[in-house]
Amino acid sequence: MIELYDYFRSSAAYRVRIALNLKGLEYRSLPVNLRDGQQREPGYREEVQAQGLVPALDIDGLRLTQSLAICEYLEETHPEPALLPSDAADRARVRALAQMVACDIHPINNLRILQYLTGTLGVDEDAKLAWYRHWVEEGFCAIEQRLAKDNDTGRFCHGDTPGMADICLVPQVYNANRFKVDMAPFPTIARINQACLESPAFDRARPENQPDAV
Amino acid sequence: MIELYDYFRSSAAYRVRIALNLKGLEYRSLPVNLRDGQQREPGYREEVQAQGLVPALDIDGLRLTQSLAICEYLEETHPEPALLPSDAADRARVRALAQMVACDIHPINNLRILQYLTGTLGVDEDAKLAWYRHWVEEGFCAIEQRLAKDNDTGRFCHGDTPGMADICLVPQVYNANRFKVDMAPFPTIARINQACLESPAFDRARPENQPDAV
Repeated sequence: MIELYDYFRSSAAYRVRIALNLKGLEYRSLPVNLRDGQQREPGYREEVQAQGLVPALDIDGLRLTQSLAICEYLEETHPEPALLPSDAADRARVRALAQMVACDIHPINNLRILQYLTGTLGVDEDAKLAWYRHWVEEGFCAIEQRLAKDNDTGRFCHGDTPGMADICLVPQVYNANRFKVDMAPFPTIARINQACLESPAFDRARPENQPDAV
Repeated sequence: MIELYDYFRSSAAYRVRIALNLKGLEYRSLPVNLRDGQQREPGYREEVQAQGLVPALDIDGLRLTQSLAICEYLEETHPEPALLPSDAADRARVRALAQMVACDIHPINNLRILQYLTGTLGVDEDAKLAWYRHWVEEGFCAIEQRLAKDNDTGRFCHGDTPGMADICLVPQVYNANRFKVDMAPFPTIARINQACLESPAFDRARPENQPDAV
C-alpha cells in the first residue's frame, strides 16, 4: 500500500495527492500535524523526513521526498495519464511553470518561514500578511503573464489535460485564497484553477476533503 | 549560439553554467547586473524574464527559464554525459537532493528576499545574516545526514560522476562561504564540493571566473 505523510493544508503534500489521484493510485494518508509541530519531533526527522517537512511517500519499497521529485517518479513509473507533454520544449515550459510556484512562491511563504518572521524577527500580523501576499502576487503576475500570452495554454496550464504545472498551481491558489490575496488581476490562473477543481482527482485532493481537516 | 542571461553570483545561473559545461555546450554569457537592479527594468521583465530573475537560456529557438527546468531540458536533448542516473528510484534521489537546495534553501535567501528583509521590514544586518545562516544550516543538516547515510553517495552526491544534485550543491556552498556559514558540521558536503571544483566544468562556472565578476 502506498503511504503518504500528509497534512491537509500543506501545499506540497496537496500536490502529491493530486498527482496520485490523476495517476489513479490508491494510497493511505498518514497525517502529520504541522500546527502542533509533529514534524519537528526527533522521531519524525530521524525516521521519516530529515528536513522535518511533509510530504514523504512510501512506494515500491522506497521513501521519497520533495514533491516535484515525487511527481517525476510517478510520471516515470506510471506514464499514463501523462503529467508532462512528450516534447522536450513543452516539458521545459510545464516544468518552469511548476517551479515558478514550487521554487519562487511556496518556499518563501511556508509555515516555518512565517513562524520565523513572527517569532525570531517579531514581525506583526499585518506585516506577515503583507509578506505573504507580496510573494504570491509577484509570482502570480509572472505566471499570469506567461499563461495569458502563450498559445500553449489551454483549458489547463498546458493544453487541455491537467499536468505538473496545474498540480502546483491549484494548491498555491488555495493558499492565496486563505490569505485573502485578490485574484482579480489573475483571471487566467483563476480560470484554470476552476477547471482543475471540477476534476475529481483535484477535488478529492482538496484540503477540506482530507481526514485530518479541521 | 546558446545565450545565457547570467549574473556571476546568481546561484541559479551558476547551476546552468555548470550544466552547460558538463554537457560540453558552448554558450555566450549575457550578464544582467542584479546589484544595480537591471533585472527589474521593464525591458528585462517584458522581453526576457517576466519574474525579473536570472537565469534565462536562449537555445534551439526557445527562451527557457527556471534553472532546474533548464537542466532537465539539457538532459533530455543532450543525454550524454548524463546528469541523472538511469533508474527511476535513483533519479528520484538525485532530484530530491537537488530540490532540497533549489526549493528549500536558495529561494529563501535570494537577493530579493534579503532586500525585502532589510528594506520593507527594517531588519538589521546581524538579523539578516542570522536568517541567511539559519536556512542554509537547516537545509545542509538534512542534506549532510542523507549524503552521509546513503550507500549511493560516492565521490559525488550520487556515485562517482557529477550530476544534478552536485550542480545545485556547489553554488549553495559558494553562497554559504560568502555568508561565513561554518561548514565543519557538514564534512560530506564539503568533501563533495571539493571534488566538484576539481573538475574543469565546475571550475569554469565559478563566479570569480565569469566576465562580469567584480
